[in-house]
Amino acid sequence: MTDRKEFRDLSDPEDAREAIASLDLTPDPEQVPLEDARGRTLAERIDAGLDVPGFDRASMDGYAVRARDTFGADESDPATLELVGTVHAGTKPDVEIAEDQAAEISTGAVMPEGADAVVMVERTDETEEGEAVEIRTAVAPGDHVMLAGADVAAGERALGPGTRLTAREIGLLSALGVEEVPVRGKPTVGIVSTGDELVRPGDEVDSAAGQIYDVNSYTIAAAVAEAGGEPELYPHAGDDYDEMERILREAADECDLVLSSGSTSASAVDVIYQVIEERGELLLHGVAVKPGKPMLVGRVADSAYVGLPGYPVSALTIFRTFVAPAIRNAAGVPEPATATVEARMATEERYSEGRMRMMPVGLTETGEARSASKNASGGTASDDLLAYVVDKGSGATTSLVEADGVVEVPADTAYVAEDETVAVQLFSPDVRPPTVLGVGEDDPALARLLDSLERPRYLSVGSREGLRRLRDGVPDFAVTSAGTAEDRGVEATELAAYRREWGLVVPAGNPEEIGSLADLVDRDLRFVNRGSDSGLRTSLGRAIADLADERGSSRHDLVASIDGFELAAKAHESPARKVASGQADAGLGLRATAEKLGLGFVSVGTEEVHVLANPERAEKSGVRELADALDDELDEILAGLSGFGQ
Amino acid sequence: MTDRKEFRDLSDPEDAREAIASLDLTPDPEQVPLEDARGRTLAERIDAGLDVPGFDRASMDGYAVRARDTFGADESDPATLELVGTVHAGTKPDVEIAEDQAAEISTGAVMPEGADAVVMVERTDETEEGEAVEIRTAVAPGDHVMLAGADVAAGERALGPGTRLTAREIGLLSALGVEEVPVRGKPTVGIVSTGDELVRPGDEVDSAAGQIYDVNSYTIAAAVAEAGGEPELYPHAGDDYDEMERILREAADECDLVLSSGSTSASAVDVIYQVIEERGELLLHGVAVKPGKPMLVGRVADSAYVGLPGYPVSALTIFRTFVAPAIRNAAGVPEPATATVEARMATEERYSEGRMRMMPVGLTETGEARSASKNASGGTASDDLLAYVVDKGSGATTSLVEADGVVEVPADTAYVAEDETVAVQLFSPDVRPPTVLGVGEDDPALARLLDSLERPRYLSVGSREGLRRLRDGVPDFAVTSAGTAEDRGVEATELAAYRREWGLVVPAGNPEEIGSLADLVDRDLRFVNRGSDSGLRTSLGRAIADLADERGSSRHDLVASIDGFELAAKAHESPARKVASGQADAGLGLRATAEKLGLGFVSVGTEEVHVLANPERAEKSGVRELADALDDELDEILAGLSGFGQ
Repeated sequence: MTDRKEFRDLSDPEDAREAIASLDLTPDPEQVPLEDARGRTLAERIDAGLDVPGFDRASMDGYAVRARDTFGADESDPATLELVGTVHAGTKPDVEIAEDQAAEISTGAVMPEGADAVVMVERTDETEEGEAVEIRTAVAPGDHVMLAGADVAAGERALGPGTRLTAREIGLLSALGVEEVPVRGKPTVGIVSTGDELVRPGDEVDSAAGQIYDVNSYTIAAAVAEAGGEPELYPHAGDDYDEMERILREAADECDLVLSSGSTSASAVDVIYQVIEERGELLLHGVAVKPGKPMLVGRVADSAYVGLPGYPVSALTIFRTFVAPAIRNAAGVPEPATATVEARMATEERYSEGRMRMMPVGLTETGEARSASKNASGGTASDDLLAYVVDKGSGATTSLVEADGVVEVPADTAYVAEDETVAVQLFSPDVRPPTVLGVGEDDPALARLLDSLERPRYLSVGSREGLRRLRDGVPDFAVTSAGTAEDRGVEATELAAYRREWGLVVPAGNPEEIGSLADLVDRDLRFVNRGSDSGLRTSLGRAIADLADERGSSRHDLVASIDGFELAAKAHESPARKVASGQADAGLGLRATAEKLGLGFVSVGTEEVHVLANPERAEKSGVRELADALDDELDEILAGLSGFGQ
Repeated sequence: MTDRKEFRDLSDPEDAREAIASLDLTPDPEQVPLEDARGRTLAERIDAGLDVPGFDRASMDGYAVRARDTFGADESDPATLELVGTVHAGTKPDVEIAEDQAAEISTGAVMPEGADAVVMVERTDETEEGEAVEIRTAVAPGDHVMLAGADVAAGERALGPGTRLTAREIGLLSALGVEEVPVRGKPTVGIVSTGDELVRPGDEVDSAAGQIYDVNSYTIAAAVAEAGGEPELYPHAGDDYDEMERILREAADECDLVLSSGSTSASAVDVIYQVIEERGELLLHGVAVKPGKPMLVGRVADSAYVGLPGYPVSALTIFRTFVAPAIRNAAGVPEPATATVEARMATEERYSEGRMRMMPVGLTETGEARSASKNASGGTASDDLLAYVVDKGSGATTSLVEADGVVEVPADTAYVAEDETVAVQLFSPDVRPPTVLGVGEDDPALARLLDSLERPRYLSVGSREGLRRLRDGVPDFAVTSAGTAEDRGVEATELAAYRREWGLVVPAGNPEEIGSLADLVDRDLRFVNRGSDSGLRTSLGRAIADLADERGSSRHDLVASIDGFELAAKAHESPARKVASGQADAGLGLRATAEKLGLGFVSVGTEEVHVLANPERAEKSGVRELADALDDELDEILAGLSGFGQ
């Protein structure tokens, strides 16, 4: 094992922020065509180079006149003016207006010499011969005329440096005839992936050799783009250290910032050290923050360098907290208004470690509108947000989508209380809490139903854990196949119930001729079970207890003679997939799964699945949407799944 | 004039929404590479195709063991296990673990056959010969091991249809090895510009011929992109109607939606009608909404068609209200969370017309933190927002940047009260209220100072109107050169005062040998003045009054003999620019302006400029930033401008 000296003296998070801020990521400003300027930030102030409009302009269809010739005119006593011509928009007037004369004029046309007002067409009548016009109203000089420069005058300050360009500013720049816009450059961020075990999506992974897909490269690239940087993915170097060194040097030459995410390979870290020491400077190694202590900050040649932790949630959290602000700052992009939201803690959280903690949380709306933000004009009131801790271990990539952001907990905090208001830093401004949050049994009928909901989140934690969480009041609904809410003493509103057939999934054609559960006990068969939180496992337990009663034997003895009873696979399809791949002779599962995967099935029983709503969330729109979908679509979904029914 | 029958029977805004919703803009889904998937929306549900991790994985650096061999081990009585090999991440284990054996293992490596737990390296000691390891703690089966599929199991629902892809979802898709992602297509939106007078930025405008830059094309293109569409700008057809028809047909063939913005040319409208009638269907013409009634909705061939009004603010408002939701819906993009904010009305607004009104408003923060949203964890409290009506006439492009959004006022509303809460639909989710809002005199020193503020907005409404607005309590500060706040009875805190030299700007070398103001009265010179709200005009008025006193004449008589006294140019440079272009012999202006434009100058006097803060906003951060900038930078700015000083 290498000497991990670097972790012995962890830096303060504030020092890490300062170290990164001290690195200069700011690229040169650039000129972009107006059509590509959206979302960019002005590098310098823009003054109007011309008057808008550039001429005195009719702002109505009508007749250009000398206002004094209309004085006293009204419906009963119109003024009759000689019609001397027509002025169209986009043409140079070929008439001049003298006393008692008028010219027909279109909106946007140049006011002819002599005229100082426009009479709108609705207040006029042309004579039949078209030689004169009757004016039925008096106008004042300047009426329905926009004077040259009235909108923007040449020399006026139009937009300041640092202005973010949206459709509106692009409109003003168009009006000023600006074709190319001076904008802040986007910092180029090179992403270098190290780690022998990583494979880029698109290539095959060899699981037996411990290969996994490279999660951080694309995740961080997307986060860089969200922060206003220009991500550049470098080829994966694999375990060739010369190549890794070459790529690091190349990235440092080409980019304003190079990011790598922690390799589990000590040699890779050595290569990075070596390149930094030869061509740059190491500013900081190790930060007192959890997750994420193995963080490196330094300089390689003219480029900044930050080494992120290896686990995806840690890498994204550290990126968001320490690196994204520096990229935004270099790009001139303001922190998005939605990047931080307030929420109430769903449950108490206690801490023992003296490190600042970036606590990943998921968000859910309770559906209780805050009365303070209601208003008379029909504006939407914001919902009360609840934050619950997502703690699946930092190696889990699913935490990425199950957490919405992080709460920064200072190092000296002993606990965060239930109902305490916390500031949640969203992973990206696009993050929005799910419309409905469900927990519980992994079930294919339910999984299909979720497809028709707007933005659901469902955590497959099993029936028992689902009921526990429903009792704690966090989710909007729970799904259980291990008994009803009453059985478990949980208060809930049943939205739907249906039945599913379960049993043993076996290879196609049932080559071992397995006939019933008893064969698992009596014969030498490799079995794969589900975890003890799963409702299927509860049903299996009951069936084994029945078999034990029948035989006058103990449940424990029967279980002990099933090879693989303790082999708990995670998802409802997992045991069946083990059977399909030849790793087992039988797996606990559903008839529907066996059919989907083209496997055989030995039926053991049916169990009832209950969809239970949190009684305090009955009126939440996402819960109503779920109830409606159950009413409208459940029958059809059940009919399409073998072994499912009401 | 053409027959404007279309406006006689205006449709209800709700019907317009339905008509647009009835047009199918939805493009086919497409496959995009994972690295381009950010911001897109999943077209279909994605189930995990493999287990993550794909193997039982060490989650710590340490030793892979059989847990039972460590039972009873502790610091004082370690278990000694035979060291049989090493397993690195990304390699296939070449050892098996039998009783009382262990293998060194790296984080992320495959658990070797026989081992069921990992002991972390910190709790072990290798013997000197490297043949055995002492284990100083007991572990349970599964400790520091992530089982295959524990993160995501093959067959599990990973992401639902309609999921917006951010960095997080891209991370999960990477983990699943997804290389190409099925996403909702972006509707292609063709933008056709009509109107003889329009010139694209980059080309020269001929103001004498009434040409102006095409504002709507790029504005609407940016707004289309913001809504998730793919804008396509078609070449400007100018006044060639055959070409316009050809372009419309081409756009309809190539795009899901074609937008044009109102031409002032009746013939252009005729061409559009003709194409719609020949190849499509007109669903609706004219909507009871202000601004924006001249709106067309229809179909051309397989494409939807919407004709937007011509004025930029109207076009963007109608686009936002009616078209953007349809584009978002087709692209599968949710309405952004920040698209609507709540604000208090700064002043009462009364309505007489029976049309729904889209009232453009600007936003400003009062700086009063809402106590309800304060929290213990250091979250930022949101500031109270004030909305003020921006009403410069819909032809003004500057309204684009001076308004932040619109308030939808129902047709039957008689008034919106001061302090009433309104829902402001932001022009785009990127819109953020200015950090500081100023009003008043157009002044070059102040314009430079604004460059160092974060996100200022300054409305050059003149000294008098500036003081009026400050009295009404809307802006954060006002700048006046027409007397102090006390003179005008306005309560204010003076942040700074400085002097500027004013007089007559004349051509370089002063060819007419103008010596003083008296020459304007006594000689036949063409003069250009400023508007009556400007402080400069007030100073001029005083100087003329003094001259009248001196001569025993009346101010009125003197004014009457100045040719052009009523010619009020908009901005402080405008009279000077008229002089520069030979349109006038003298213009009211500043010494600094004359110098900047290389013109001559005849000094008349100096006037004092006061920067006055709203007394209720002294603690607002934007006001403090302004005060700091005045303290730190004003001296230098004044030193750099001729005729300016303390």
